[in-house]
Amino acid sequence: MKIPVVKDILSANDQVAAENRTVFDAANVFVANVMASPGAGKTSMILATAKHLPPEIRLGVIEGDVASSIDADAIAAHDIPVVQINTGGNCHLDAPMISKALTHLPLTEIQLLFIENVGNLICPAGFALGANIAVVVASVPEGHDKPYKYPGMFASADIVLLNKIDLIDVFEFDVLDFRRGVGLVNPEVPIFPICCRTGEGVDAWTEWLVEHIHAD
Amino acid sequence: MKIPVVKDILSANDQVAAENRTVFDAANVFVANVMASPGAGKTSMILATAKHLPPEIRLGVIEGDVASSIDADAIAAHDIPVVQINTGGNCHLDAPMISKALTHLPLTEIQLLFIENVGNLICPAGFALGANIAVVVASVPEGHDKPYKYPGMFASADIVLLNKIDLIDVFEFDVLDFRRGVGLVNPEVPIFPICCRTGEGVDAWTEWLVEHIHAD
Repeated sequence: MKIPVVKDILSANDQVAAENRTVFDAANVFVANVMASPGAGKTSMILATAKHLPPEIRLGVIEGDVASSIDADAIAAHDIPVVQINTGGNCHLDAPMISKALTHLPLTEIQLLFIENVGNLICPAGFALGANIAVVVASVPEGHDKPYKYPGMFASADIVLLNKIDLIDVFEFDVLDFRRGVGLVNPEVPIFPICCRTGEGVDAWTEWLVEHIHAD
Repeated sequence: MKIPVVKDILSANDQVAAENRTVFDAANVFVANVMASPGAGKTSMILATAKHLPPEIRLGVIEGDVASSIDADAIAAHDIPVVQINTGGNCHLDAPMISKALTHLPLTEIQLLFIENVGNLICPAGFALGANIAVVVASVPEGHDKPYKYPGMFASADIVLLNKIDLIDVFEFDVLDFRRGVGLVNPEVPIFPICCRTGEGVDAWTEWLVEHIHAD
């Protein structure tokens, strides 16, 4: 008797994520899944980055929140195409939510899509959306111990942005200990210190991003 | 034909939570389930409160984290009995985890138990642990829009502590807008502004807590 062996069966979510990726690739859109704690500065990072993008890279945004359209309103105020997803009680975005949101975005007119995930340092890391890169935003007021407490999130990152660095002294934030913690679970990941409020460091991270968009 | 109608069936978690509560009541221990975003200051709040408790109220702590024993180490350094729960990847504590942890605590020697939940503004609100009250810690650097974005968490609170109030000006934090957002989902809940770093407001919140312990 021959026993059937089926390899590489994708989960339902991973299957839709792969379909999303096909859509993104066909439209030549580079996609970043932005994950962070509540209030780390995901929306501020997106708006600060938008200011530094070269004109040939036009931006679109998908906003994920349990409730409200506060973040989408902030993005729309800057004339950036945006779709708000309200998850109800769900603690993360999933690939089918993105698939539905895509029909409301002018994909052929944008080159970069930020997907701002629900504010949560745990669950979003477990759900592929079809993005090219995972951007994890940490922030100084949260403390330097976060990589040790939430290793799965930092392990999933392709790049870590450390935001609100103007408050390093106020919070006695130990940058070396933070970097050590990230390195334990993700030794090669680049870490960019930024401050979205003052703009510090945003140019360097945007340069990194643009290079990756062009290399894709 | 008589159709059997079964009322008030508790979920598996709620059933264990009710059992935990029976254990707490029998030992005369008042229990607070402390919930917040990562880095809002849950551990700092517990340590600041410990300094203000009258001597007849002895404290115990259960620490919940995805990984690490950083918080339990900080509590133990103050000679407070503490148990660390590591959830692995789980984004919240549940009642069976508490039930197991209880066997490691000297319940007859304490009057107050803080259960520090996993840092997450969504999932922990959905899982009863058997506590007497839910304490939600918000913090100024997260922004005043959090009650609008995470209504379930703020709806679940018996008391809201707004931490890091020394930074209200730095973050242009709109206290009225924050209070309005909390009020939309939880009109009667008290909101205490505190700063665990400086100790500001910790006496007033501790007084509220002690009153509730004595009234129980």
